[in-house]
Amino acid sequence: MLAADRAHAFAGRAKVVAVSARNRKRQPALDLTGYAWYDDPVELAGSEDIDVLVELIGGADGPAKRAVEVAIAKGKPVVTANKALLAEHGGALAALADKHGVHIGYEAAVAGGIPIIKALREGMRGDEIYAVHGILNGTCNYILTEMERTGRAFADVLADAQRLGYAEADPTFDVGGIDAGHKVALLAALAFRVAPTFDAVVIEGIDRIEPLDIQYAAELGYRIKLVGSARMENGVLDQRVRPSLCPLAHPLAGVGGPINAVVVDGRNRGRLTFIGAGAGGAATAASVASDILDLAAGGKRHVFAGDLVAARAAKGRVDPVGAFYLRVRLKDRTGAIAALAATLARHGVSIDSLVQKPVLDASGAPVVLTTHPVADSVIHAAAQDLAGNDMVVDGPCVMWIEDDPD
Amino acid sequence: MLAADRAHAFAGRAKVVAVSARNRKRQPALDLTGYAWYDDPVELAGSEDIDVLVELIGGADGPAKRAVEVAIAKGKPVVTANKALLAEHGGALAALADKHGVHIGYEAAVAGGIPIIKALREGMRGDEIYAVHGILNGTCNYILTEMERTGRAFADVLADAQRLGYAEADPTFDVGGIDAGHKVALLAALAFRVAPTFDAVVIEGIDRIEPLDIQYAAELGYRIKLVGSARMENGVLDQRVRPSLCPLAHPLAGVGGPINAVVVDGRNRGRLTFIGAGAGGAATAASVASDILDLAAGGKRHVFAGDLVAARAAKGRVDPVGAFYLRVRLKDRTGAIAALAATLARHGVSIDSLVQKPVLDASGAPVVLTTHPVADSVIHAAAQDLAGNDMVVDGPCVMWIEDDPD
Repeated sequence: MLAADRAHAFAGRAKVVAVSARNRKRQPALDLTGYAWYDDPVELAGSEDIDVLVELIGGADGPAKRAVEVAIAKGKPVVTANKALLAEHGGALAALADKHGVHIGYEAAVAGGIPIIKALREGMRGDEIYAVHGILNGTCNYILTEMERTGRAFADVLADAQRLGYAEADPTFDVGGIDAGHKVALLAALAFRVAPTFDAVVIEGIDRIEPLDIQYAAELGYRIKLVGSARMENGVLDQRVRPSLCPLAHPLAGVGGPINAVVVDGRNRGRLTFIGAGAGGAATAASVASDILDLAAGGKRHVFAGDLVAARAAKGRVDPVGAFYLRVRLKDRTGAIAALAATLARHGVSIDSLVQKPVLDASGAPVVLTTHPVADSVIHAAAQDLAGNDMVVDGPCVMWIEDDPD
Repeated sequence: MLAADRAHAFAGRAKVVAVSARNRKRQPALDLTGYAWYDDPVELAGSEDIDVLVELIGGADGPAKRAVEVAIAKGKPVVTANKALLAEHGGALAALADKHGVHIGYEAAVAGGIPIIKALREGMRGDEIYAVHGILNGTCNYILTEMERTGRAFADVLADAQRLGYAEADPTFDVGGIDAGHKVALLAALAFRVAPTFDAVVIEGIDRIEPLDIQYAAELGYRIKLVGSARMENGVLDQRVRPSLCPLAHPLAGVGGPINAVVVDGRNRGRLTFIGAGAGGAATAASVASDILDLAAGGKRHVFAGDLVAARAAKGRVDPVGAFYLRVRLKDRTGAIAALAATLARHGVSIDSLVQKPVLDASGAPVVLTTHPVADSVIHAAAQDLAGNDMVVDGPCVMWIEDDPD
C-alpha cells in the first residue's frame, strides 16, 4: 500500500478502496480505517468495487497468481511488482490480458525506481535493440561492493547484510541470481518482443567469489559485478545472469552499493544507460503509482510484445565466445602449472595472461589467468577437467569478461 | 524525414504522405517519389491529407511556428524536435493544443536519443522532483572533453570541431549555452509542472574557459562541464546553464565527448541518471518515431504540466549559495595577492583554497582559488570589483562548484 502522504498524487484519479495482507495486525504503520478489508486477496481481486488490482504479494504461484488471474478475467487491469510471476507466467498472463482488453503494469518489478519498463516499451519504440545488460539485484551489488571495500569474505559480508536487513534470511533467491534472472526475462521480453522465458535464462550466483578474485580483477583493471544480460545472436535469444569482470570504463563498473543500472544498446540510439535505486519502499511505491496514473491516462499498451514486429521464436542455444577469467588453487608442487597449462591447451584454450602469487597458507597456490576469446562451452569443459586433476586443490572459478566499451 | 529502412517500424501505423523542405533538390539521399511535395510547410500543415505534422525545421519563430500553429488549429497532433520553439512559445502552444484536444510530442528536442521526456512526464509520475541537472549540449561537452584531453585552447578545439562538422559555422547558439538553455526550460517545465520560461534561464557559455582552468580543476579533483540545471528553492524555480566544476564522483563528471546525460533527484526514487547520445540523425529519428507510435497508441497526455498539481507560479529570483572557483591573472608585483584577498574579504567572500603558480609568460600571474559557500550575487559583485582593480591583468573567471554526490 502507498503511504498516505503520497495520496495527493492520486487526487481525483485513483482511490484505495480495499486492502488485503497476510496479517492485518502486521501493518501497524498504516491506518486501514476506511478501507474494506479482505483476508483473501483472491476475493478482493474479484470484488465489484475495484477498478484496478495492485498486487504486491510476490511469488510466482499461489495467491498472487490467482488474484491476478481473477482480476484480469473480470476485465480489471493489474499493477504488480511481482517479477517472479511475470517471468514465469508472463506469456499466459499477457494473453489473458489481451483477451480481456486490459493492461498489466509492472514498472516496479525491474530495477525498482528506474522507469526502465516504460523506456523499453514506449520510449525506445522505433529502435532495434541489440543487447541489454544490467545490475539488477541490489543485494548482490551491495555485497560485492562491500567485499571490495573491506576485503572481507562473501559469507561475512552476507551475514552483515542480513543483520542490516539488506539481505533476506534465506538469501538464495538473491545471491543465487534467481531474482536477477526473473528481471532479465522481463527485460528480454520487452527488448526483443517475445514472451518471457525464465526457464531459458542461464544463471550463476555470486557465492563462489572470493576476496582474492576481487583483488586480482582489480589488478587486471576490472570490477566484478553480477551482470544480467539479454542479447540476440543470429536470431537466437541469449539470456544470462553471471558474475562478470567489467572493465573500469564499462558503464556498469562504477555502479556501487545497492544501486541498479541498465545499459541498452540499440541500432539508432546507440548506448543508453539508466542508473538508480533498485529497491526500497518509496522507489517501488513511486513506480506502482506511475503505473496506476498511466492506466488513468488510457491508451493502448502491450504487456510485452506484439507491438511492432511479430514475436520471434527464441529457439536454440547461444554458446557465447569471449575472454574469460579463471582462478584455481594448485598444489605447491613441481609440475602443477604445467598440468594446468596442458589441460587448457588440450581444450584449445589460449592463455592471455597468468599470475601465480606466493603461497600464503595451506589452501594451495592460487593461480589466476585470463584467456583469449573462447567458447563458453569450451572453457567450462576445460574447467570441469581441471576440477578432476589431482594437482588442483580447489576447483576453478570461471568468470566472463565484459568487452571494453567502445 | 525518416530513412526508408526504418519504415518497417511504422508498418500499418503511420505513413509518410507529404514532405516539405527549404530546397527539394538538397535532399539527394532521399527518394521523394510518391510523397506529395509542398514548397511551403505551412501549407503542408494545413493539408487535409495529413493526420500528424512532424516539424523538423527548427527556429523559435518563422515557418516552424506557423506550421505547428496551423496543424494544431486543424486538430492535428504535432511531433517536433524544435527545442527553441517550445522553450520560447511552449505555454501558448500547449494551451492551443489543449484547446484543440491534440498532443505535441517532443522527445527528440532534449538529449536526442535519451527518452527523458517520457521518463519525466510519465515514468516519474507519482514522485516529487527536487532537481534536474544535465549535460545537454553535445558540442560543448565534446569541446570541453577535447580541451582536457589535448590541453589545447578553446578557439583551436572549436575550429577543429567546426571542420569535423561537430559544431556549426556560427557556434554562438551552442557554446553560448542558448541551446542548453532551451532544453533546461523544457526539462524544468516537465519536472515542475510549469509552462517553459526560457527568458528566466540564467545562461553562461563555455567560451571563457582556458586550458589552465581545466588543469587547475583536475588538480582540485573536478572536471569542468556545462551543466544545465533546474531546481525549486522555497517554491521559486531556478534555471541555469553554466560551466561548473563537477567532483569526479559526480554522475555528470564521467560523461565525455558528445554524450548527453540527465540526473533527476526525486523524493521517492532518489537519484536517477540517464546517459546517451545527445544528437545525430539516427537517435533523433528514433525519438521522433517513438513519439509518432505513441500518438498511434492513444491515451491522454499533457504537453507539459497540469497533470497532478496545479502549475506553480515561478516568480522571484533564486540567489544560489555554494562554493565557487575563481581564476584571475594578477600583475607580478608585490601586494597583488594582498589586493585580491582584501577585495574578497570586503565582500565577505571566504577563501577555502588558493594556488599561485610560477609566472610563465607575460600574461600575468594566474591565481586560482575556491571559496567557502557564498551567494552567487556576492561572488559576482566581488568579481566585478576585482575586474576594475589595477593589480588585475585579466578579469576573473568565476565558476560554480557542484556538490559532492551523497
